[in-house]
Amino acid sequence: MNQGAPVTRLVAELPATVPFVGPEAIERQSGRTFILRLGANESNFGPSPRAQAAMQAAIGRVSNYADPENYLLRETLAERLGIKREQIVVGSGIDDLLGLVVRAFMERGDYAVTSLGAYPTFNYHVAGFGAQLERVPYRNDQNDLEALAEAAQRVKACLVYLANPDNPTGSWHTATELHALVERLPNQCLLILDEAYTEFAPPDAIPPIAVEDPRVLRMRTFSKAYGMAGARIGYAFGPESLIQVFEKIRLHFGVNLLAVEGALASLEDDDFVQSVVTSVAAGREDYTHLARELGLAPLPSATNFVTIDAGGFERAKHLVTALAAEGVFIRMPGVAPLNRCIRVTVGQPAERAAFAEIFRRVLPVVQTTTPAA
Amino acid sequence: MNQGAPVTRLVAELPATVPFVGPEAIERQSGRTFILRLGANESNFGPSPRAQAAMQAAIGRVSNYADPENYLLRETLAERLGIKREQIVVGSGIDDLLGLVVRAFMERGDYAVTSLGAYPTFNYHVAGFGAQLERVPYRNDQNDLEALAEAAQRVKACLVYLANPDNPTGSWHTATELHALVERLPNQCLLILDEAYTEFAPPDAIPPIAVEDPRVLRMRTFSKAYGMAGARIGYAFGPESLIQVFEKIRLHFGVNLLAVEGALASLEDDDFVQSVVTSVAAGREDYTHLARELGLAPLPSATNFVTIDAGGFERAKHLVTALAAEGVFIRMPGVAPLNRCIRVTVGQPAERAAFAEIFRRVLPVVQTTTPAA
Repeated sequence: MNQGAPVTRLVAELPATVPFVGPEAIERQSGRTFILRLGANESNFGPSPRAQAAMQAAIGRVSNYADPENYLLRETLAERLGIKREQIVVGSGIDDLLGLVVRAFMERGDYAVTSLGAYPTFNYHVAGFGAQLERVPYRNDQNDLEALAEAAQRVKACLVYLANPDNPTGSWHTATELHALVERLPNQCLLILDEAYTEFAPPDAIPPIAVEDPRVLRMRTFSKAYGMAGARIGYAFGPESLIQVFEKIRLHFGVNLLAVEGALASLEDDDFVQSVVTSVAAGREDYTHLARELGLAPLPSATNFVTIDAGGFERAKHLVTALAAEGVFIRMPGVAPLNRCIRVTVGQPAERAAFAEIFRRVLPVVQTTTPAA
Repeated sequence: MNQGAPVTRLVAELPATVPFVGPEAIERQSGRTFILRLGANESNFGPSPRAQAAMQAAIGRVSNYADPENYLLRETLAERLGIKREQIVVGSGIDDLLGLVVRAFMERGDYAVTSLGAYPTFNYHVAGFGAQLERVPYRNDQNDLEALAEAAQRVKACLVYLANPDNPTGSWHTATELHALVERLPNQCLLILDEAYTEFAPPDAIPPIAVEDPRVLRMRTFSKAYGMAGARIGYAFGPESLIQVFEKIRLHFGVNLLAVEGALASLEDDDFVQSVVTSVAAGREDYTHLARELGLAPLPSATNFVTIDAGGFERAKHLVTALAAEGVFIRMPGVAPLNRCIRVTVGQPAERAAFAEIFRRVLPVVQTTTPAA
């Protein structure tokens, strides 16, 4: 009897792993609801009131598909960036665009280079399309740009993935350092510069826009400072000839209409984004002081989270568990040496105070029961 | 100098075609706004008031990602269908799920079978993953199930795509006929049964659910009767072992949070969906009478559109253009012999009346200036 189609050889060999377990799954397993959601790299400052109003106004016509060309949003972004609409592609978040770029540029067996412990969803796509990954250890809790370039040369990488500012460390490099990395890439190699946290970064960490540089594709999102992670909308910009490749493989009717309307309205509310950036900077200070007060070392951060050295993998792991038992959702980096840390999203002032109260209570218990590494 | 990564051989060879041009693009080109949007296979009855309320209530927390497991929605759908949650996968509409199924089950060079002139987005994915397409002509303006089975056997197809009810004809087959098709599929062949329009179908066109049948994967959506096309949310159900394959390749954080909330609320509003189905049936009658009154032959439809024989390709094409000039957006099938027809979405009563008025005025002009085929 016909048993249906077998999966491809490639897919048969893929592990059934997921990049992240959602907080909802932890809640279902534990039977407890999180009271503080500080672990999923979301913004706790919500979307702009203007974005909310725009989404609300559009709900009645969510029966219509969004414009498959995302013309108005690309036009608006192009104006802000001083580039052309044809140099921008919109997708359902950076995750979507990363999958497309791997699909478009990596033959099976080709190599991509990334930092060991960097964004798992990029790795998921590389494996998912049968390509290879070369991972370079973090150095001093930062991406090691020299080692990334060396690895790219060694394996003749076609893609290098770098988040700047970085997740999960919060670290950043200057535009000058990034430029030096680009100059050191081997031939036929494209840097995927994930700028999801760019709004939180100091100005010198944001390279000037040389959009037709064939060596760089930049990605940005409405998920972080704009507070619209659940809307799933982001974009990539780069050379027109490279951007046009997406037209051959993207889901033309893939982006949610409300997400587009919210994104457009967000772009008219710079004051809101600036207020989020300011509040987040204050929150990073709060976490930094809290960590130091408790004898822990916070990593410098140019994002909306602070990664804190908890004194070893066991302590970090137990902190995540102990905080979850108190209703606090945080995450920790998955790979050594970063897995000695916990990563805490900057919440609103009341959330930060609640976190501080719980953290002060939980930390000594974990430190007492779990020896330092 | 490093010129960046070249695209893969496969992507380099893909044409830069898009499955559909959106009405927004036509509006931009013409400088005119459509007053009647009856061409994009959307619902003109909007989303359920409950879905609208649920989406509105969730806007403030669109800063959170949706549950990557879509647990609650899958659980709710499973209960309704009498199957298990593990037999359902949620995606960003059927388009998204079709891409994943082609990626999971088609090696390069493998064959899929579909009707000549059926859903272009399926074809887009087949080409996009380097697989081959065998197309079977429609017969009497219906999918030719016998010929589909024969073609599948001849080319040793691994996938057969069939929409039931069908787009762009509106036609449908009974469960018994579909069962006979499944029985005739070759070994290692999966039927993708696209049931986007199933809510509009007569009961005997909806096969009973034998969810663990390894030969069939069914897809449904909130885009049509539920009026949420712009939200991008649909699902597939089938054997658990087959559904689990999606976990290896899908975008786990890909579905919009508001879409999930709207879908959940929609499922609690069967009265609304039933009212849409009733209104659409009345609207099909209106269009059928209108077409006959004007001497045209409407095709029988079990969808929310009516496809009308315009008397030839030239007349159909000129009708689309002439209606657009009057502010009416409709589409026509792209391939002979169906491209002698126009396809008109059932609008609300006032929209139908407005369409009838314009159509009565435009048709004689087109008929006078364009000879019948």
